[in-house]
Amino acid sequence: MIKIDYAQIREYAVKLLEQRGVTLLDIAKITLEVQKKYYDDLTIEECLDHVANVLNKREVLNTVLTGITIDILAEQGHIEEPLKSILTSDYSLYGIDEVLAYSIVNVYGSIGLTNFGYIDKMKLGIIEEIDRKGHEGNNCNTFLDDIIGAIAAAAASRIAHTR
Amino acid sequence: MIKIDYAQIREYAVKLLEQRGVTLLDIAKITLEVQKKYYDDLTIEECLDHVANVLNKREVLNTVLTGITIDILAEQGHIEEPLKSILTSDYSLYGIDEVLAYSIVNVYGSIGLTNFGYIDKMKLGIIEEIDRKGHEGNNCNTFLDDIIGAIAAAAASRIAHTR
Amino acid sequence: MIKIDYAQIREYAVKLLEQRGVTLLDIAKITLEVQKKYYDDLTIEECLDHVANVLNKREVLNTVLTGITIDILAEQGHIEEPLKSILTSDYSLYGIDEVLAYSIVNVYGSIGLTNFGYIDKMKLGIIEEIDRKGHEGNNCNTFLDDIIGAIAAAAASRIAHTR
Amino acid sequence: MIKIDYAQIREYAVKLLEQRGVTLLDIAKITLEVQKKYYDDLTIEECLDHVANVLNKREVLNTVLTGITIDILAEQGHIEEPLKSILTSDYSLYGIDEVLAYSIVNVYGSIGLTNFGYIDKMKLGIIEEIDRKGHEGNNCNTFLDDIIGAIAAAAASRIAHTR
Repeated sequence: MIKIDYAQIREYAVKLLEQRGVTLLDIAKITLEVQKKYYDDLTIEECLDHVANVLNKREVLNTVLTGITIDILAEQGHIEEPLKSILTSDYSLYGIDEVLAYSIVNVYGSIGLTNFGYIDKMKLGIIEEIDRKGHEGNNCNTFLDDIIGAIAAAAASRIAHTR
Repeated sequence: MIKIDYAQIREYAVKLLEQRGVTLLDIAKITLEVQKKYYDDLTIEECLDHVANVLNKREVLNTVLTGITIDILAEQGHIEEPLKSILTSDYSLYGIDEVLAYSIVNVYGSIGLTNFGYIDKMKLGIIEEIDRKGHEGNNCNTFLDDIIGAIAAAAASRIAHTR
Repeated sequence: MIKIDYAQIREYAVKLLEQRGVTLLDIAKITLEVQKKYYDDLTIEECLDHVANVLNKREVLNTVLTGITIDILAEQGHIEEPLKSILTSDYSLYGIDEVLAYSIVNVYGSIGLTNFGYIDKMKLGIIEEIDRKGHEGNNCNTFLDDIIGAIAAAAASRIAHTR
Repeated sequence: MIKIDYAQIREYAVKLLEQRGVTLLDIAKITLEVQKKYYDDLTIEECLDHVANVLNKREVLNTVLTGITIDILAEQGHIEEPLKSILTSDYSLYGIDEVLAYSIVNVYGSIGLTNFGYIDKMKLGIIEEIDRKGHEGNNCNTFLDDIIGAIAAAAASRIAHTR
């Protein structure tokens, strides 16, 4: 078996998110938005800490790499029809973006499902912008918006588990 | 292998829902609420038809029977501590209610995840009442509220798939 | 929100498993059987340590409590028809036992899926006995056999992640 | 919303499988192998019919297209490190291949989980060959072997549901 250095992959994943216009702080803001009504004293720093911890999980890193890579390859024209059109139009019956998101959310158990759905539906925080940009010109953020929502929801679950 | 008559089980499941205060029409109203912004001409009759179809699926029926049975047994005092307190308080880190709900939502694929989370978070339609009643006295609706939301979300997915 | 003491629940869950005829060592033996071909130096002590760790997860404890409780209530006659017959016959199209098992397996990610399926199909170790006993007289082990297989598979995933 | 013609996508998916060395008959043979002990009169024709039906499901088609596309792009060198090495080595802790497979298996409910795990572990039928070829030279069948196993398992579930 080859050795994969997940500390290095973590760095790479964070860079990949930033290249696509998303910082961990952007994700932490979404987590804060969904959890602040339950915890009066919750701060953005604490949320950021939980988001950073979610990104220590290999399952999460593998999903981030895979999803964003597909988005990029779709933009670069390396993906053939009909999958190309499905991806670049963020076709609502595609569903594989939700499948990948689910594998992130589930890292802290099923209690994250509700938050993920809510975040995704309301396009909280930076998700609205990522989603809108994904529909401009040649852009593709089909996986990215769900990945952001899933990380934010997983961080929310982590808060619930540790408080 | 024993023969299980699922037509009969379907009837029983609908009756069980009604005994717990929920009609298929109540569920259809939730589906309409989440889908009407996407389909101008969507009617409550069409939503009801989709909800009725969701209840033809064995996976759904098995989940409805199991979840509501646990709620009832918790009320009747047949479940021992500590599970009793977890169930009757609808403990937010329990998660098995979401696990069961997910098995309903997923019947029409991962695209239902978002609607389920949104419905559950917003406590749409009758869910608010079911949830509130579940916290009164000896009542337990820990599974029921998620089951309703999951059926409504599955029906929404079915609409998306057939339109 | 009520406070649930999961250290206490863990003790209770282990006792519940033992009352149903299953020790953590029985589960560790299954983990050893599926993993020994990949790791020459794997010992039963190491497997037992991983099994013990799987049982620190709340998601796992909630599932163990819920599944075994349903088995017991079915035996005690507290569950009405038609669910009673579905449970006591371990009806192959029921599926809720697999749904619960999946929530255990998934605690260490999707890589556990394969081991779970293999363990369950081959009825490895004590599972064969548990399954057989579950079909005798009034017994019901519908959830228990899947729970054992799921914990063993999760422990196998944990080994893969930590080695 | 764009219109996606899933009849056309189905044709394309079958062609894609064939280009990667897999016919529907190859998959049907796996289904027959796992189900023949339960149904004496089960024929390869009936299994083939069920496999063909599994491929009518959009969730399945989307997964087939996505998974095989990633395999091909990895072979063509369009995927950057470190994901490239993870994919071309079929890294055992990657897990996204199992995540996608699960979305196929689950189309006929959770009862398919066991068969999928068993098929995958035993590398039944053509899977052994696909897996072996995937490790030769520049080849990548990381997603393909799980996709085949998942379709075969879903067809097995479909048989169980319809008999």
